[in-house]
Amino acid sequence: MTRIAIDAMGGDHAPDQVVLGAVDAAKEGHDVTLVGDASRIEQILTDVGFDLPVTSATEVIGMGDDPAAAIREKKDASICVAARLVAEGAAGGVVSAGSTGAAMAAAAFIIGRLDGVARPAIATLFPGGKIVLDSGANLACRAEHLVQFAVMGAALATTLLGIERPRVGLVNIGEEQGKGRDLERAAFAGLAGLDGIDFVGNVEGRDIGMPAVDVLVTDGFTGNVLLKTAEGTARLVQSVLFETLDKAPYRDAAAVLAPAFDEMKRRVDPEATGGAHLLGTKGVVVIAHGSSSRVAIANAIALADEGASHGLVDKIASGLSAGEE
Amino acid sequence: MTRIAIDAMGGDHAPDQVVLGAVDAAKEGHDVTLVGDASRIEQILTDVGFDLPVTSATEVIGMGDDPAAAIREKKDASICVAARLVAEGAAGGVVSAGSTGAAMAAAAFIIGRLDGVARPAIATLFPGGKIVLDSGANLACRAEHLVQFAVMGAALATTLLGIERPRVGLVNIGEEQGKGRDLERAAFAGLAGLDGIDFVGNVEGRDIGMPAVDVLVTDGFTGNVLLKTAEGTARLVQSVLFETLDKAPYRDAAAVLAPAFDEMKRRVDPEATGGAHLLGTKGVVVIAHGSSSRVAIANAIALADEGASHGLVDKIASGLSAGEE
Repeated sequence: MTRIAIDAMGGDHAPDQVVLGAVDAAKEGHDVTLVGDASRIEQILTDVGFDLPVTSATEVIGMGDDPAAAIREKKDASICVAARLVAEGAAGGVVSAGSTGAAMAAAAFIIGRLDGVARPAIATLFPGGKIVLDSGANLACRAEHLVQFAVMGAALATTLLGIERPRVGLVNIGEEQGKGRDLERAAFAGLAGLDGIDFVGNVEGRDIGMPAVDVLVTDGFTGNVLLKTAEGTARLVQSVLFETLDKAPYRDAAAVLAPAFDEMKRRVDPEATGGAHLLGTKGVVVIAHGSSSRVAIANAIALADEGASHGLVDKIASGLSAGEE
Repeated sequence: MTRIAIDAMGGDHAPDQVVLGAVDAAKEGHDVTLVGDASRIEQILTDVGFDLPVTSATEVIGMGDDPAAAIREKKDASICVAARLVAEGAAGGVVSAGSTGAAMAAAAFIIGRLDGVARPAIATLFPGGKIVLDSGANLACRAEHLVQFAVMGAALATTLLGIERPRVGLVNIGEEQGKGRDLERAAFAGLAGLDGIDFVGNVEGRDIGMPAVDVLVTDGFTGNVLLKTAEGTARLVQSVLFETLDKAPYRDAAAVLAPAFDEMKRRVDPEATGGAHLLGTKGVVVIAHGSSSRVAIANAIALADEGASHGLVDKIASGLSAGEE
């Protein structure tokens, strides 16, 4: 276990759900410290009769704040203090459900980028065990960024999924080489020439459920659309299913299957992982959904701990330096 | 009913499945003419004991041919002859399951673009009744292209779905104005200023199942990824569902629900519509999947006939000229 710093003030349901999620994670054995308004945090802990370390932070960065400016001006904001714990070595990772922009700025300016990283990227673990990056940190990318994403995503797949030699695909509109925009054609060449990566070529959105690839690389605009479309479609299919089953001839049989439907929902729930790793910084950073419940926060903490305890940052650093040789 | 010209030689299962699909469509009352190798087509018709008009074309454009060059060089290719029937007024629309590039080139060079259309776009009807364009004709777009897509997509929504004032959304990574790339920010401004269109602002991929929007506008790369991701996710959710149900305690109840599952599959099947309209040309053009079966071909013919018989091209032309005033 590596200590994880929790931005207790970030998220729609902060601090209550964040503190409760941290309590749940601690009960599972994770080592956490809560960062934020100490008196509010301690009150919540007292209410549930559980003790956790608290690091005081007097300011909060809101969703409306300009992230880069807020990081400079609110030095005592919870996300800044949490990031500083990582920068100083007092924690191995940070979890925030607050402003994604603020978490990214804190990661870049307080924790710092790994040597040679042009653009830290958000890597989302998709149901079915695929990693998609970038999921929204960098809307416009150059080919060399996508090549770095491949290296970083492969390191994450090794760390989280235990895949020794992850297969990396380039998100594109067709499988044949030469498909896509200038970006994809240039990235294809760069990825094909990369040592230590099993580049499987172009993959399409319809391959999202297929077992032939572990890491999907794309720009942050496309990755964000891809993930949200998958989320929306999973919900659409489920709602059509339940609407269809809510008819007289089917209701009784459907009731018998309720546990099976719950299992399916869990297996395709995009929020089950609780958050996404920001890759390319000198410490583990997990960005949780703003709407995170205590369950999602606990999952995000487990995700951060898994990365921190299994040397994710070192794996990325050595992957990047191997690519430069 | 308006006569629809069918490229009988286009598609993985041509001419057999294409001819059989045309037979099915004709039995449903659609007026079709088959274009291609007359002796092969007539043999298939003889085998099933059904008579349909055939227009001879001696050449075929393959998937490996360069589309623009092939259109120039193979004047007697089935897609060229079919497009010429439309250009000459002998047919109101064309259906092809062959090379998409060849169909687009035939549409642009033989049927011709409507006045003022910068980029014809492929509009896909998504399960749940939403139209997504562009789905892959134009990988890189400028803001003014997206604004034209909105006008053309709204005309299609009126024609196919009977929606008098379709709601148009811009595919983006967040709902707030100002989100996205330069393309989305510029397109947002253009769409907001458009008369006669109910622009609902930015929409996300997770809105794909929501009723608040009818037409989703985006560049062809993003649209293609969005549609294929939805297809892949729908398949993934279904496969997880059936895998979960294929266990001892559930099997009997699941068997009772088989008709309900079939209904769900039909409702979320991305191939149910059979094809996509290419919008912005002087005749109706429907591009069917290369893998189209006879059922998909018959659906594609119905889709083309619906557009041709309900004045789709005129609606687009008047929408575009209204936007110019």
